[in-house]
Amino acid sequence: LMTVTPAVFRQQFLTRHHWEQAQFFLALDQPQRLRLYEVLTPQELGDLFDDIDDDDAQIPQFLSEMTPQVAADMLGAMYTDNAVDILEHLDKISVRRFLARMPHATAAEIRNLLHYEDETAGALMTTDFVAIESDQTVGAALELVRASANDAELIYYIYVLAQNRLVGTVSLRELLANDADVALAKLMNQRVISVPVTADQEDVAQKVRDYNFFALPVIDDQQQLLGIVTVDDIIDVIDDEAISDYSGLAGVDVEEVAEQPLRSALKRLPWLITLLFLGMSTASLINHYEALVSEASVLAVFISLITGTAGNAGTQSLAVAVRRLAFKDQTHTAMKLLLTELITGVMIGVVTGATITVVVGVWKHNFILGFVIGLAMCSAIIVANLAGSFIPSLMERLGFDPAVASGPFISTLSDLTSVLIYFSIAQHFIHFFVS
Amino acid sequence: LMTVTPAVFRQQFLTRHHWEQAQFFLALDQPQRLRLYEVLTPQELGDLFDDIDDDDAQIPQFLSEMTPQVAADMLGAMYTDNAVDILEHLDKISVRRFLARMPHATAAEIRNLLHYEDETAGALMTTDFVAIESDQTVGAALELVRASANDAELIYYIYVLAQNRLVGTVSLRELLANDADVALAKLMNQRVISVPVTADQEDVAQKVRDYNFFALPVIDDQQQLLGIVTVDDIIDVIDDEAISDYSGLAGVDVEEVAEQPLRSALKRLPWLITLLFLGMSTASLINHYEALVSEASVLAVFISLITGTAGNAGTQSLAVAVRRLAFKDQTHTAMKLLLTELITGVMIGVVTGATITVVVGVWKHNFILGFVIGLAMCSAIIVANLAGSFIPSLMERLGFDPAVASGPFISTLSDLTSVLIYFSIAQHFIHFFVS
Repeated sequence: LMTVTPAVFRQQFLTRHHWEQAQFFLALDQPQRLRLYEVLTPQELGDLFDDIDDDDAQIPQFLSEMTPQVAADMLGAMYTDNAVDILEHLDKISVRRFLARMPHATAAEIRNLLHYEDETAGALMTTDFVAIESDQTVGAALELVRASANDAELIYYIYVLAQNRLVGTVSLRELLANDADVALAKLMNQRVISVPVTADQEDVAQKVRDYNFFALPVIDDQQQLLGIVTVDDIIDVIDDEAISDYSGLAGVDVEEVAEQPLRSALKRLPWLITLLFLGMSTASLINHYEALVSEASVLAVFISLITGTAGNAGTQSLAVAVRRLAFKDQTHTAMKLLLTELITGVMIGVVTGATITVVVGVWKHNFILGFVIGLAMCSAIIVANLAGSFIPSLMERLGFDPAVASGPFISTLSDLTSVLIYFSIAQHFIHFFVS
Repeated sequence: LMTVTPAVFRQQFLTRHHWEQAQFFLALDQPQRLRLYEVLTPQELGDLFDDIDDDDAQIPQFLSEMTPQVAADMLGAMYTDNAVDILEHLDKISVRRFLARMPHATAAEIRNLLHYEDETAGALMTTDFVAIESDQTVGAALELVRASANDAELIYYIYVLAQNRLVGTVSLRELLANDADVALAKLMNQRVISVPVTADQEDVAQKVRDYNFFALPVIDDQQQLLGIVTVDDIIDVIDDEAISDYSGLAGVDVEEVAEQPLRSALKRLPWLITLLFLGMSTASLINHYEALVSEASVLAVFISLITGTAGNAGTQSLAVAVRRLAFKDQTHTAMKLLLTELITGVMIGVVTGATITVVVGVWKHNFILGFVIGLAMCSAIIVANLAGSFIPSLMERLGFDPAVASGPFISTLSDLTSVLIYFSIAQHFIHFFVS
């Protein structure tokens, strides 16, 4: 494709969708990229960069390949939210250098957006929206939409302002369905659904889910319209949250882009080694009971069965708890959750314990041994189940994300409690099943 | 609110957003609902029902409370995709009864949609889109958009047809930015991004993510436009897939709405009891080595440490594998994944094994014992890591969803392999560390 003349190339290239242009660009080597920067205008580069994932680690490299002025023009031509996402990954000096080369108004807007905290509505929003005064008509609004069609990220909602405050919304659908001389104030929806600029991104996502909006306005505490969050960014938020919950449960960052096994290993080891030391306390607890094991080596047979089953129950309970806590629903308070899990744990424990009592009793022709194993398993499951819901609740209470309590952590912790329960019970009954 | 006159109530109620109307409705008791069915028109009820979650178990109850004609009119007034979602949860006789009371064209459309398989583009799509012939102009298209504004689910993309085949798309943005006499054929984007009606919903979601579209056209193999999938339905798909992956990893359905502990317990027990029997094979393996344990009861001390750590590593590897397999990326073939995980496993195994060798050596003043534990842990981790990536790959190959391989399953399975490895190694070296 790069062997044709620039004019022919542009003609073919620019009919592609921006995302496809971005995929094409990402497959180029450096000399090819350098040619592309010359063939395309900064605006065209900006359209393409709007569709590159802002987490892409190569972006700083790409920017450094352009002349500083081209890079600045390109960033200025992008939707402000995407430009900000890129600038957030750069060092302060580069950011300042690019901003200095942008038109004053654009630079000021971007500088403003850079101040908002990560994972809030402010950090997600774009300032490329369509807003109009409430004393205007449908005709004037349509004119404004036409004029903004190329710059605004979303033209399907028009935000209505009065003295700088957001007082209503009109959809493009309603504008088209009404006559040009209808007053916006009569037509607009006055029950504006909006989010504060400091809102957590999960809450913004929930509102978009509930109302099925393509965009939500973002306001400050004076009801001033600061920007809009569009649904494509909300999808990214939902994906990120899902990946982080999933990673949390597994105790590993599943986004490890690394094909390189070394980088994968380095990412997984810290958690494994930490848990290894927690596991060592279980080992030293068993060590404490070594005399008991020498006396009745049959006890060793059931260690992994009891710890494993309790760990499984704890992981299930953990996952349910993390999920319930994610919906900050009034009806699922932490206390209620714990109570539910306690009762669930008792039921699961009793059924599982009874099952294993029979199995072991028949297998070993020793129902007292069976009862000891069953009682230990039942108690271990109840405790693991409670821990699985208590620990994420505690984390939330302490201000952490409950999703970081991992399945491996709960399993390893429940190994400790299970072994303690198992040997305490076994010690108590030892004279009944060892001759 | 229900004490005021119907006119006053309607005036207050209908200014609310449909989602808020739905929330209000869901909080009513039966006598209040019966009054509401009389106060609102079927179209207004339909708007409200469009914003009730179609999985809501009460919907059949609500429908049975209405007169059959009101229910049919309401279903006919809803967006077709939502009406179909509701009808899919009803028995065949009710479906036939409602369809018989609808206008012929609506009933035919819905009957068609009901045939598409679950979790495909066909099952997600709505037929309420705006389409126009390619020999028309911008002005005619805008006229059509105005006329469709009340019925179409999404008017922001206009689909251009020639001899019934989808040949282009024009955004409302482009219509507004051009003069009325411009031919659509000149303006339209001819590189249409669409999905086949049989496409898996995950692939549809991925396309919406990539291109940041608000809707995607759905076509048959003759390029005929059958419907569109809108982004709000894609968000539901993304949420459902995330919940099902998360549930799979934990080995529990985290959507268990049940506050009732009994229902929770019944949902979790089958998996736990299955794994209990898998765990029993580990127990009988240890039983097989009971003589060894009597001879060296110190071996019992490290059972849970080795099985636990290998299980943790296997869970991490499983989560990474499920995630990678979800992106059917050419560069991550199953073989490559297994190779990467093998090398990662060796690295993790060596580091963890070396750590525990030193810890046990120092603790027990016995470096041969330390070496046995370290070697066993290293081998157990390598095997668990491989199992964690092999099992989801195998499931995918066999046509199952790799996400159903749960963390508890991998941990329980790796208990078995870990114990086997541990005792084989210990038996080999027993004379070196037991006097």
